[in-house]
Amino acid sequence: MKNELLTLCFDGTNYHGWQVQPNAVTVQSRLQDAAERILGERVPITGCSRTDAHVHADMFCCNLRTHKEVSPEKLHTALNAVLPRDIAVLSVREVPLDFHARYDCTGKSYRYLILNRAVRDPFLENRALHYPWTLDAEALHAQAQSFLGTHDFSAFCASKSDVEDKVREIRECTVTRNGNLVEIRVTGDGFLYNMVRIMVGTLLDVQCGKIAVGSIPQILSSCDRTRAGVTAPAHGLYLHKVYYEE
Amino acid sequence: MKNELLTLCFDGTNYHGWQVQPNAVTVQSRLQDAAERILGERVPITGCSRTDAHVHADMFCCNLRTHKEVSPEKLHTALNAVLPRDIAVLSVREVPLDFHARYDCTGKSYRYLILNRAVRDPFLENRALHYPWTLDAEALHAQAQSFLGTHDFSAFCASKSDVEDKVREIRECTVTRNGNLVEIRVTGDGFLYNMVRIMVGTLLDVQCGKIAVGSIPQILSSCDRTRAGVTAPAHGLYLHKVYYEE
Repeated sequence: MKNELLTLCFDGTNYHGWQVQPNAVTVQSRLQDAAERILGERVPITGCSRTDAHVHADMFCCNLRTHKEVSPEKLHTALNAVLPRDIAVLSVREVPLDFHARYDCTGKSYRYLILNRAVRDPFLENRALHYPWTLDAEALHAQAQSFLGTHDFSAFCASKSDVEDKVREIRECTVTRNGNLVEIRVTGDGFLYNMVRIMVGTLLDVQCGKIAVGSIPQILSSCDRTRAGVTAPAHGLYLHKVYYEE
Repeated sequence: MKNELLTLCFDGTNYHGWQVQPNAVTVQSRLQDAAERILGERVPITGCSRTDAHVHADMFCCNLRTHKEVSPEKLHTALNAVLPRDIAVLSVREVPLDFHARYDCTGKSYRYLILNRAVRDPFLENRALHYPWTLDAEALHAQAQSFLGTHDFSAFCASKSDVEDKVREIRECTVTRNGNLVEIRVTGDGFLYNMVRIMVGTLLDVQCGKIAVGSIPQILSSCDRTRAGVTAPAHGLYLHKVYYEE
């Protein structure tokens, strides 16, 4: 038995997220099909997290266990040959048998991309939120610092989540502007269902005046989802980095 | 009668180029449909150039003549509301009646984007040439300087072209690297059919040893298409800038 750690990158536009679902095309199902074609057996593949439909990944990790004798190099080349063009395997390496892509993950970074100009950009269609109104990145960055530290993020979790422990640590939350592009980057030890999208939506609601400046600490302590902002659209979100202890 | 100069941007993936063609979807046909819907009449639209199927545009100019009373601002907003999402109108402004987007164009810049790494990038699918082999941008830049100046570009023109005068002036031809991305930029007074793609293909053939280093001047003076390199794929090419005298 071998355990292989795969690092992927995917354009999530055409997928209903990572996790296998009935009657929906997902990245995991595509990867399982590709692996089965190469290995001649259906193998278990474990992802570092679920992702929502249409969310992208600059980096996504998963591990695959197989009885077949295949070198990481050959598996890498073969997977890229068989996978659809909107999924790429960046690397494959053998890891200890007890390595688990989700349980061993020590942190993740997400980035949320916003196109802030009047006219849409055809090259960012499905890849950035088009926000044509005023957006003060510096002011939002200041607001975003309230997310730092360890909090109960119940107010920033989709109500249909059934996770019990909603305490998470946010290590970094930055809002930066590069020309017309604004990027919100969030790093933490773990994330609840829709958490980054609700954090982004709340910052945008502060921007447009629907939520008062300075109220993020109160929203956090309220643990009340209805006090936070909208859930920002999925297509601006990228899982950017996945951390493991070396 | 009014003459409006439209500046567009489009992802060419789903189009058979700019120019209206029977039985093919083109950018011009989509724009004519959109303008007809807004103006209530079929109007003549003249582009700054043809573009090949699947070529992109960071900037493309065309002019539209109409009898209807509509402000540039309203036309701008209405076109973006009606056009498909892979075409955007960046600006609309009124120009003198005798302005002609093709004849008055004094120059154009193209850029050709190459992803130079082993693994493909899902986010650059259809938007850059994936070239996984060694590519020495500095060496190619030195070779590319042979294109500068005024030459007969017959050797760098698709054989099915029926243009008679094949003399063009190239003002700039640079090859630069930014990480895994290599960009070839070409600026000139005008371009022949497939000219930039053959220039790029020739540089890549020099890179891989199919064409000898230092032979571009001889290929130019031969006026022989068979001595130049392959025609690089369309999907790496972007019309980048269109110049007019102010």
